[in-house]
Amino acid sequence: MHVMVIGAAGMIGRKLVEKLAAEPDALGYEITRLTLVDVVEAPVPATLSATSTASALDLSSEGGAERLIASRPDVIFHLAAIVSGEAEADFDKGYRVNLDGTRSLFEAIRREGQHEPYFPRLLFASSIAVFGQPFPEKIGDEFFTTPLTSYGTQKAICELLLADYTRRGIFDGIGIRLPTICIRPGKPNKAASGFFSNILREPLVGKEAVLPVDENVRHWFASPRSAVGFFVHAARMDTNQIGPRRNLTMPGLSALVGEEIAALGRVAGEKAVRLIRREPDPVIASIVSGWATDFDARRARELGFAAESNFDEIIRIHIEDELGGNI
Amino acid sequence: MHVMVIGAAGMIGRKLVEKLAAEPDALGYEITRLTLVDVVEAPVPATLSATSTASALDLSSEGGAERLIASRPDVIFHLAAIVSGEAEADFDKGYRVNLDGTRSLFEAIRREGQHEPYFPRLLFASSIAVFGQPFPEKIGDEFFTTPLTSYGTQKAICELLLADYTRRGIFDGIGIRLPTICIRPGKPNKAASGFFSNILREPLVGKEAVLPVDENVRHWFASPRSAVGFFVHAARMDTNQIGPRRNLTMPGLSALVGEEIAALGRVAGEKAVRLIRREPDPVIASIVSGWATDFDARRARELGFAAESNFDEIIRIHIEDELGGNI
Repeated sequence: MHVMVIGAAGMIGRKLVEKLAAEPDALGYEITRLTLVDVVEAPVPATLSATSTASALDLSSEGGAERLIASRPDVIFHLAAIVSGEAEADFDKGYRVNLDGTRSLFEAIRREGQHEPYFPRLLFASSIAVFGQPFPEKIGDEFFTTPLTSYGTQKAICELLLADYTRRGIFDGIGIRLPTICIRPGKPNKAASGFFSNILREPLVGKEAVLPVDENVRHWFASPRSAVGFFVHAARMDTNQIGPRRNLTMPGLSALVGEEIAALGRVAGEKAVRLIRREPDPVIASIVSGWATDFDARRARELGFAAESNFDEIIRIHIEDELGGNI
Repeated sequence: MHVMVIGAAGMIGRKLVEKLAAEPDALGYEITRLTLVDVVEAPVPATLSATSTASALDLSSEGGAERLIASRPDVIFHLAAIVSGEAEADFDKGYRVNLDGTRSLFEAIRREGQHEPYFPRLLFASSIAVFGQPFPEKIGDEFFTTPLTSYGTQKAICELLLADYTRRGIFDGIGIRLPTICIRPGKPNKAASGFFSNILREPLVGKEAVLPVDENVRHWFASPRSAVGFFVHAARMDTNQIGPRRNLTMPGLSALVGEEIAALGRVAGEKAVRLIRREPDPVIASIVSGWATDFDARRARELGFAAESNFDEIIRIHIEDELGGNI
């Protein structure tokens, strides 16, 4: 099978490729060819070098999607996007990449299928940003999508396209609405959501981290390992179980910042907790107050998607996957 | 105020323009200029001839939207669309007209506003086709949009764009999700929904009509007069009341085919009812069984939108508006 990962240089893309390198049968079939695509050339794991190629390509560039689809991948992970903040700051770029880039991918698949039968599986990274305040206490699987950002709008539109192209038999699509990924590896960044990861990742290696909100802020989380697991499961599963409602809110953990910190104490001790410096930031607090706090992701759970059930687990996964098992 | 009606040659467009001709202050301000746009030249009512122009223009043609918006209309009624059956039969045309045509209108407004401040009100004709089976008994205002047609997908996407462009301050948009319009004037057509109107309209003028489904089929209706009323109200109302959720399921009447027939009997007598010929058509019955049957359109009602509460009223409106008050 020819597997293509678009957005392979991003955090989830890299982890997905590492997973396929470590467990070549993770998808339940042999990967005879792996194509890694991103705007920059993605790293190819050494064990995959015989069958893998990395291409630097912008999906939203003229003819870009057609060039990718000409190689007729059997499974396509579409993870590429402009992030929320940038899509809000640059209207044209956000719509061009997140909407037009995705639509051109879908269209390239449709046109390829008009020449010769073609029916790839397509796994699309969507986001809980498709939802907008006000919310019920738990957001159910039938709650409407009223995004309050252009990023969320673009994801919600791509979800609709994915469902229609799937209904039309153009590809076999699943939209994966990701929770906030925690603990994000790497350096602290300026994303408004960054502190959720920073306050765990930094103290685990003896560094200070800033907490800009109250401990009673609630949010919806899953580990990077779960995120990769969602995509792997979506690539393997029997899609006949899903029906026409192809966009699924992934399971996650609803937790308070205070619960993050308590788990950090249990796993890494009070000296780690003392590295969290409280610096209230009303701007960040206000942004975060508009975000979803809890979901009842029943459909996805019933379809076999799974995530963590407590923050101790999320922290242990980070220690195993990023810190070689040691703190 | 400069008012533009796009889709002015369609059924609702013509009735809206007739309303503005009959009641020049219907929108609550003076209409100093009226521009009627459609792919064919729309009829201009004689009383409006001094201030009105009709243009034959395809919104999805290159530069079409820019040409319209260069005249800086203050209020835009966007009613133009490829209908459901055609959008399903012709994938490219449906997406080109219903999605790209609408998006190019929105973009033309954005670009016009980049030259000189511009903030028109935009009223968009959406549809209950944004919903797809299975449904709850009554579809509430927060139910998700999972369309099962490309037409419904295109309308749902335009709704998302409308909300985002409105949130961004590009225009002041309202999406109007229309019920099935009944009694549609004109000749019987082959639309799967045609019989809902045919079985009333034809017997009212002494002609036979075919009923292809059971009398216990339930559906969601409003009169053409209500449809025009929705758009007029949306053009007049204080949009600060609405908030960011700009797409509204309009009120309507949930009724059985049997209730339509009973109302026909009360208004026009048993000899009218006897003109309905039962010819079960499993294809039509199957299509119709996928349609929404009932809504709780609370938000729109609270915002002042109103429709009929029984079929006697719907029939009387048809007699007044289409048959000169006589049967």
